[in-house]
Amino acid sequence: MAMLHDWGSRDDQFLRLNREVLARLPAIVGGETDFVAVPMQGSGTFAIEAMLTTLVPPRGKVLVLSNGAYGRRARRILELARRPLAVYETPEDTPPDPAIVERILARSPAIGHVFAVYCETTSGILNPIPAIAEIVARRGRRFLIDAMSAFGALPLDARGTPFDALAASANKCLEGVPGLGFVVCRREILAGAKGNATTLALDLHDQWTTLERTGQFRFTPPVHVIAAFHRALAEFDAEGGVAGRGGRYGENCRVLREGMQKLGFVPLLPPPLQAPIIVTFRMPAHPRFVFPRFYAGLKKRGYLIYPGKLMLADSFRIGCIGRLYPEDMRGALAAIEAVLEEMGVSLAPAEAA
Amino acid sequence: MAMLHDWGSRDDQFLRLNREVLARLPAIVGGETDFVAVPMQGSGTFAIEAMLTTLVPPRGKVLVLSNGAYGRRARRILELARRPLAVYETPEDTPPDPAIVERILARSPAIGHVFAVYCETTSGILNPIPAIAEIVARRGRRFLIDAMSAFGALPLDARGTPFDALAASANKCLEGVPGLGFVVCRREILAGAKGNATTLALDLHDQWTTLERTGQFRFTPPVHVIAAFHRALAEFDAEGGVAGRGGRYGENCRVLREGMQKLGFVPLLPPPLQAPIIVTFRMPAHPRFVFPRFYAGLKKRGYLIYPGKLMLADSFRIGCIGRLYPEDMRGALAAIEAVLEEMGVSLAPAEAA
Repeated sequence: MAMLHDWGSRDDQFLRLNREVLARLPAIVGGETDFVAVPMQGSGTFAIEAMLTTLVPPRGKVLVLSNGAYGRRARRILELARRPLAVYETPEDTPPDPAIVERILARSPAIGHVFAVYCETTSGILNPIPAIAEIVARRGRRFLIDAMSAFGALPLDARGTPFDALAASANKCLEGVPGLGFVVCRREILAGAKGNATTLALDLHDQWTTLERTGQFRFTPPVHVIAAFHRALAEFDAEGGVAGRGGRYGENCRVLREGMQKLGFVPLLPPPLQAPIIVTFRMPAHPRFVFPRFYAGLKKRGYLIYPGKLMLADSFRIGCIGRLYPEDMRGALAAIEAVLEEMGVSLAPAEAA
Repeated sequence: MAMLHDWGSRDDQFLRLNREVLARLPAIVGGETDFVAVPMQGSGTFAIEAMLTTLVPPRGKVLVLSNGAYGRRARRILELARRPLAVYETPEDTPPDPAIVERILARSPAIGHVFAVYCETTSGILNPIPAIAEIVARRGRRFLIDAMSAFGALPLDARGTPFDALAASANKCLEGVPGLGFVVCRREILAGAKGNATTLALDLHDQWTTLERTGQFRFTPPVHVIAAFHRALAEFDAEGGVAGRGGRYGENCRVLREGMQKLGFVPLLPPPLQAPIIVTFRMPAHPRFVFPRFYAGLKKRGYLIYPGKLMLADSFRIGCIGRLYPEDMRGALAAIEAVLEEMGVSLAPAEAA
């Protein structure tokens, strides 16, 4: 409904909405004082590429911690930008070991930046951001975070967990509509990043200085998307911010995992590694369990799930985020039970992990 | 209203809307057979940068025809992408001379691509695209067009005017909402552009091949913007396509120019150079004509105009496009007359150009 007004992109009232959005974002990660938020038209990946290509100088070497598709994507972005690169890759169900990160930094003084994904939705794994942040800061390097599926739901506080920038988007845990990414960045880091960018559109420094100087975007913003984001942030605040939003997702995730285990599905990850964002289940080996039929049966009942994205095992995924409540997860479980019955599939209940 | 359904970005029905949008676009410029449309999240500039950085190979030299801010922007994009460059710059009220373009191409065999802006909205000037296209084709070079403020309203037919790609956006003459640009490109040119791009997000070839292979976007699309675009294209067809849309804008422009001249304002451009998109007027020299007061008086009456963007003269601009009809232009003229009276300004009627 917030999108029904057709604001002009240079209209004062729209620009006020935009300023309010940008002012709100750093505070979500305790960055009121030292951080700024810079919007980036497009999608989350546009914000990730803007962050990496603007904040890493042309010859700056980056250590990429990768355990899924989003770590691999960052690697590809840096290769295209011709940034020197080191990659510490772990299997998709294994977080990076902070001690190994420390060893790599100790022996590689050329590495100036470390990149990690907070919640890697390839598997749904929670990576140990606070422990890595502490090491990166202690070693005097810069820490850049892909917080796409974490920002607004998983705790992160710049006053206790040192980082330099994160990228996220309007349409994940903040529950806006897609079309806008953003970077929350330490002001002094961004101020020193002039001239690094490899493109005009994704130049975060140029985007920031123009917004600061004129209050306006360099290039037409997605005004309706930003109006919806403004409204979504009011709903986020009304729910109690990160604690409220993250609490609801956590409950969604708990209900989902427990119910699925009762039905005999096996989650990929044990609870300590499971972020409350998206859950990966191993594909059942039962001969009558045919995934396209399972997917279609659920879709017919109003539930859309995700195909698996793992390289290491055949799997599928069910999301916990968005305007969903525990009763929605119970509804999904009832639909899953009905589809299993329809397919003539009975799975042995899995042991609770 | 088309944005009120919250489609999933991988939902079949949304992907069908998206396919219909992409199938419709090449036909608008007579490119049904040999052209494809590739969407680009962000804005028009994102599509321009995607077109230039994907279609021009790393060592490909480009001749940029520039007579305003958008020509200068293309130049900047190519500089950042480290593409060798020649610039033929004319004053903001002067179109490039096709004979000079021909001489430049004759003496510079290294130039592989020519870039021009169809309607340069810095001034509102119409550049001679057909004449340039003919020369570029005859000289065996590639022609890339910024058709941002022209596509859907100014005539362009690939069967008579040879070009290789154009970039435009959903939210200009096609009257969608902002958040999506697109490139309409000769299929064989795009197919040969693999590996040229300087970024991941703006890699048009990668965007195209993924859409062709999977029907899905590489990165989350602005689903609501695309749903609105689908509806906007139905309205475009209902209005009679380019002839109907362009005809209405032409009438808007005629009513505006004539009315403004009666009030004593002087348009920058003579009618043959005036595109029916946006009209630049010289700032009146009258001592009581204060632009911020003029702007505010019009805004109070419901009319938003544009500040000038010219380097060569103090000016302001009034747009003719969007869901506006000749009666809206007459309403604007009445408001302008009232604001002039309020300011105590009487201008000598300008002679019709």
